[in-house]
Amino acid sequence: MRKNYLLTPGPTPLPPQVCEALGRPIIHHRTPQFQAILKEVNEGLKYVFQTTGDCFILTSSGTGAMECAVVNLLSPLDAALIVQAGKFGERWTEICKAYGINTEVIDVEWGKAVSPEEIEKRLKANPRIKAVFTTLCETSTGVTHDIESIGRVVKGTDAVLAVDAISGLGAIDLKTDAWSVDVCISGSQKGLMLPPGLAFISVSKKAWAKINDSKCPKYYFDLKAAKKALDKTDTPFTPAITLVIALNDALRMMRQDGLENIFVRHRKMADATRAAMKALGLELFAPTAASDVVTAVMVPQGIDGEKLVKTMRDTYGVTIAGGQAELKGKVFRIAHMGFIEEFDIIAGISCLEKVLNKMGYKFNLGQGVKAAQEVFNV
Amino acid sequence: MRKNYLLTPGPTPLPPQVCEALGRPIIHHRTPQFQAILKEVNEGLKYVFQTTGDCFILTSSGTGAMECAVVNLLSPLDAALIVQAGKFGERWTEICKAYGINTEVIDVEWGKAVSPEEIEKRLKANPRIKAVFTTLCETSTGVTHDIESIGRVVKGTDAVLAVDAISGLGAIDLKTDAWSVDVCISGSQKGLMLPPGLAFISVSKKAWAKINDSKCPKYYFDLKAAKKALDKTDTPFTPAITLVIALNDALRMMRQDGLENIFVRHRKMADATRAAMKALGLELFAPTAASDVVTAVMVPQGIDGEKLVKTMRDTYGVTIAGGQAELKGKVFRIAHMGFIEEFDIIAGISCLEKVLNKMGYKFNLGQGVKAAQEVFNV
Repeated sequence: MRKNYLLTPGPTPLPPQVCEALGRPIIHHRTPQFQAILKEVNEGLKYVFQTTGDCFILTSSGTGAMECAVVNLLSPLDAALIVQAGKFGERWTEICKAYGINTEVIDVEWGKAVSPEEIEKRLKANPRIKAVFTTLCETSTGVTHDIESIGRVVKGTDAVLAVDAISGLGAIDLKTDAWSVDVCISGSQKGLMLPPGLAFISVSKKAWAKINDSKCPKYYFDLKAAKKALDKTDTPFTPAITLVIALNDALRMMRQDGLENIFVRHRKMADATRAAMKALGLELFAPTAASDVVTAVMVPQGIDGEKLVKTMRDTYGVTIAGGQAELKGKVFRIAHMGFIEEFDIIAGISCLEKVLNKMGYKFNLGQGVKAAQEVFNV
Repeated sequence: MRKNYLLTPGPTPLPPQVCEALGRPIIHHRTPQFQAILKEVNEGLKYVFQTTGDCFILTSSGTGAMECAVVNLLSPLDAALIVQAGKFGERWTEICKAYGINTEVIDVEWGKAVSPEEIEKRLKANPRIKAVFTTLCETSTGVTHDIESIGRVVKGTDAVLAVDAISGLGAIDLKTDAWSVDVCISGSQKGLMLPPGLAFISVSKKAWAKINDSKCPKYYFDLKAAKKALDKTDTPFTPAITLVIALNDALRMMRQDGLENIFVRHRKMADATRAAMKALGLELFAPTAASDVVTAVMVPQGIDGEKLVKTMRDTYGVTIAGGQAELKGKVFRIAHMGFIEEFDIIAGISCLEKVLNKMGYKFNLGQGVKAAQEVFNV
């Protein structure tokens, strides 16, 4: 007997309703039956994105939606400002470079959030900048950037603001319209509680003007073609039908719970996880601007970080994430995002304690779980 | 009570094993468990593609894999020869144009197959052509092109041959290596009996040389990045995990049945469908080079083709496909591809007879079904 617990920042666990929807016999996508689902999904996405603008469904990973943002907003040799504060910020730079965009990079120390004032300064110094690319939650470091303040800064300029909210959307607050986010992208396998395979991209009026001018080559990710299809409640190419159908179920769950309640649940899980780490004498990697969807924790002195993650997963069935790129072996990351709640966090912390204990780390067994319980029982 | 029968050329019906696999709890993709699945899937794809070369899994629709072929093989201003014999041939042209490729088009009358001699002539006349793009089964017209002969023609030149086998692979014969197909692409929702959401692309040695020279911009569809990941039994971006896991089940089924038996089953269903149409006095849209995966049939005089398809679907639960683009209302298409067998075809024809009868078309009820039975009972 082996029970598995998934506490990773994507994929996140699937609700049973979603599993059930995924396992249904398939239907054809050019039917009134599927069109009705697509219509409801489009409404649900607007609710989760907190926008009245168009939200497009792409059949791709989140990276596809990032590329979609770049190639639709810009033309070769255009200037873009990129917030690079971890692995996923770097991806914006890589995509822009692949398309001959001139990139100006704000290199933020891993574990820190970008300063909106720095963005303001850069935009003033270089009025040629046409787009600012940033991240909501930098999954690699466990940091949430202050999108609301960044939006306020970018709003007054000619540039558009594109936010990679792949990690975080539907789990922590991001008010696309109210915060002047012109292009917001997300993926299915995080806050939206689905398997990976779908990505989403919202488009503001200001962004449409840029899209109409864009000269980057594109076909599969062409938003003008997607818009024509969307206006007929259709997709330009065969969509990932079963994932879209399951998305409808997930979005219904989210609307029923209400975004505000969902955000409170995530905040509480994050607080509990952080309290537990502190009680265990562990150091957070990002003590300021710590994300409410994933907590990155420094591997303590003398402990093999990769072995810790492997043992939790392979011996006890609890999957958390290790560090990525330069943080490999230096941090571990506990996700609290999507279909995860209080008792999953308690289970995860208790497994962490078990393995730390076996690996010889000195602490009082139960202190982490107790600290988390105290947060959950306020 | 309503039972649904899907006889469309994508999506095709899902085997119960595949539905079951899709509905399982999700696992993380950077685990030994998923890596073992990916390894088996990669082997299974080579079996179905009949190649020893690399087969890449993309999270996209088939169109994404077509774009992947174009942007990896070519550079802007390169010359490409395109076989355009229907809607999907036209897509090659659209993608090439989006990336500034110079396209030379062989415009084949819809319903006819391309002549390999014409390709040979064009290649001789224009030695600058770097790639030939064609289609295995042109789903919009129900025609199969003679890829074996085309391969023989292209093999002796500097050009590479890229085949859109989205429709047809794993249902009718396509020997990637033996027929000198340099890039073969396919999708999940046809012969491979999965939902849409995955696409596949095989790459020959000759194609790799072109890929190394290619200057088209790309990121999400970059095959060099995909190759680096594949060599570590990984994918460059988060794959559509549940679809890959279900693909493993589908590929196991296909290996167990054996490609030869699968091809015979499809041939028999196609023969039976064609015999039935003839017995009903209906005319095939593509009497020569008719495909073994989908049969396009002329809507008879005095019958509303769109109403026919709608009534079969909305009143009786049998979904076939109407005509696309210029064939809208003029043909209907019955697919016999993937997880479809003898008795599904009988059911579909009997529904077609029922609706034709109600719509006032004159024929002897039962003649179509009987003709199909005779083929199946040889």
